[in-house]
Amino acid sequence: MLLEPTPIQYLGKLPGGQDIFMKRDDLLGFSFGGNKCRLAAAFLEDMEEKGKDFMVSYGSPASNLNRTVAGMCKSRGIPCLLIVAGEDGDQELTFNRQMAAAFGAEQVECSKSRVAETVGQVLEELRGRGYDPYYLYGSRYGTGNEAAARKAYQKAYNEIYKWQNESRIKLTHIFHASGTGMTQGGLMAGRRGAGGKEEIVGISVARDRERGEAAVRRYAGDGPEAILFEDEYRCGGYGLYDRDIERVIGEMMDSHGIALDPTYTGKAYAGMEKWLESRGTGRETVLFIHTGGLPLYFDYLNKKRNPAV
Amino acid sequence: MLLEPTPIQYLGKLPGGQDIFMKRDDLLGFSFGGNKCRLAAAFLEDMEEKGKDFMVSYGSPASNLNRTVAGMCKSRGIPCLLIVAGEDGDQELTFNRQMAAAFGAEQVECSKSRVAETVGQVLEELRGRGYDPYYLYGSRYGTGNEAAARKAYQKAYNEIYKWQNESRIKLTHIFHASGTGMTQGGLMAGRRGAGGKEEIVGISVARDRERGEAAVRRYAGDGPEAILFEDEYRCGGYGLYDRDIERVIGEMMDSHGIALDPTYTGKAYAGMEKWLESRGTGRETVLFIHTGGLPLYFDYLNKKRNPAV
Repeated sequence: MLLEPTPIQYLGKLPGGQDIFMKRDDLLGFSFGGNKCRLAAAFLEDMEEKGKDFMVSYGSPASNLNRTVAGMCKSRGIPCLLIVAGEDGDQELTFNRQMAAAFGAEQVECSKSRVAETVGQVLEELRGRGYDPYYLYGSRYGTGNEAAARKAYQKAYNEIYKWQNESRIKLTHIFHASGTGMTQGGLMAGRRGAGGKEEIVGISVARDRERGEAAVRRYAGDGPEAILFEDEYRCGGYGLYDRDIERVIGEMMDSHGIALDPTYTGKAYAGMEKWLESRGTGRETVLFIHTGGLPLYFDYLNKKRNPAV
Repeated sequence: MLLEPTPIQYLGKLPGGQDIFMKRDDLLGFSFGGNKCRLAAAFLEDMEEKGKDFMVSYGSPASNLNRTVAGMCKSRGIPCLLIVAGEDGDQELTFNRQMAAAFGAEQVECSKSRVAETVGQVLEELRGRGYDPYYLYGSRYGTGNEAAARKAYQKAYNEIYKWQNESRIKLTHIFHASGTGMTQGGLMAGRRGAGGKEEIVGISVARDRERGEAAVRRYAGDGPEAILFEDEYRCGGYGLYDRDIERVIGEMMDSHGIALDPTYTGKAYAGMEKWLESRGTGRETVLFIHTGGLPLYFDYLNKKRNPAV
């Protein structure tokens, strides 16, 4: 179902002189690709192994995970419910939300402060309806399924490791947008398993360092490695962006015909540039993982139409 | 710049029992992929060989070609002008148009009845500004560059041919959306060169059979082969669609997480289904080429929001 391994493409030189490559996880071929595609596939596999029969997911209204999980469940005939959490005024219609609804997934809204409670109620209600539901994060408190999530980016790391061996290109740094910690944790677990030496740098798109590191550690599993979860490029918080992030999005489309979005990949790429500017030596060989989220690029274009034009 | 060859993916069985595969030219990796990506690259190569220094393209307001050419020119620092033709009331803002504008390409509007005249004026004016412009269709009447266009899908055909040899899967039919004739002509030229035997069936998205066949012949070059340019699935004309096309778009997203659009790929896929229903034996092995146009899928989602909801 997923077109793996995804290609790794040379993009040229960064301003500091480093060679930059991009892993095109946006080209996984299912539902616009992206890290959530690999994760959704891993959760569905885990759900099947556990013999569960109803998928419950959770995310923001702009969630790529909810849209991808709903799509993958639809394609396999598995019933699915999405818990959609947001602050007040956060209920705007995004393409992700529109598509999730088109997949026919049930949707339950809740405020961010009532997630555990809502998950508990939803699971209970589904059991009352005769289902044996699977909540993809595990318990109502969002823990327990770390091992399932880990596999997704362990696998992606292994693709990167193999590519290095075949191409004889030695990466020093792997950058990516880091949110829930699943992607970064999986990459770190993969590196540990393979004995890789790259620095894996997560650019936070929302969480502060303490919370982010704790999440990454859960998904990475125990190990002696330092966690590089950088929270200084958040630009004020989840979904917020500035002209520099917009510049990066424009330049990436202009130079390489590749769409980044302001919430995840564009923010992470801009953060990577700044990280390398302040901490790089110029001798790095860098991989950026395009973790997808293409519908958010078109949300961004829609937004650019209205206030400005 | 393009991630070739693109994958060929098994989709399952068609209602008539045929195995159906899809060539994912939407995953070429530049500007959302698509046939226009291969064509734009071929035209830029031709332009460079001819020593020209200014690209002139032509298309409708929803044109994937204009958007892709503008993007590829931008990425290489080549100045570009787009002639945008449409009927009255055809000037709605599409994502393709919005992106083309963001690439900074000059744009000249004209009615469809004045294309040759407008091309002539534009070329003259550019020469007056000191450029040696390249009009990608050739002369102001739109002929002359057939050989350049042909190469793009000759190459894609060769990928398909090689895939058959490697996978030992023998295709009997290759379906795709047929508009200008460039894609179909190139495929036919590729088949002739390789000695392939598949039936190459173009589903017209706009033109009637006579006009379509003439265009395909120009791009295919002389040969004894019949041209299968099917004009009975046009659904009233360019850009028009019905519930059956919408059903196909919904089913493809639901079953495979793959976006089709109502103007090109969705219309062609629906036409292919009908073609096989009425003329197939059930023993065909079918390839559908996903010729891209992803921004049109999001235009379609935007349209679904407004009138109905």
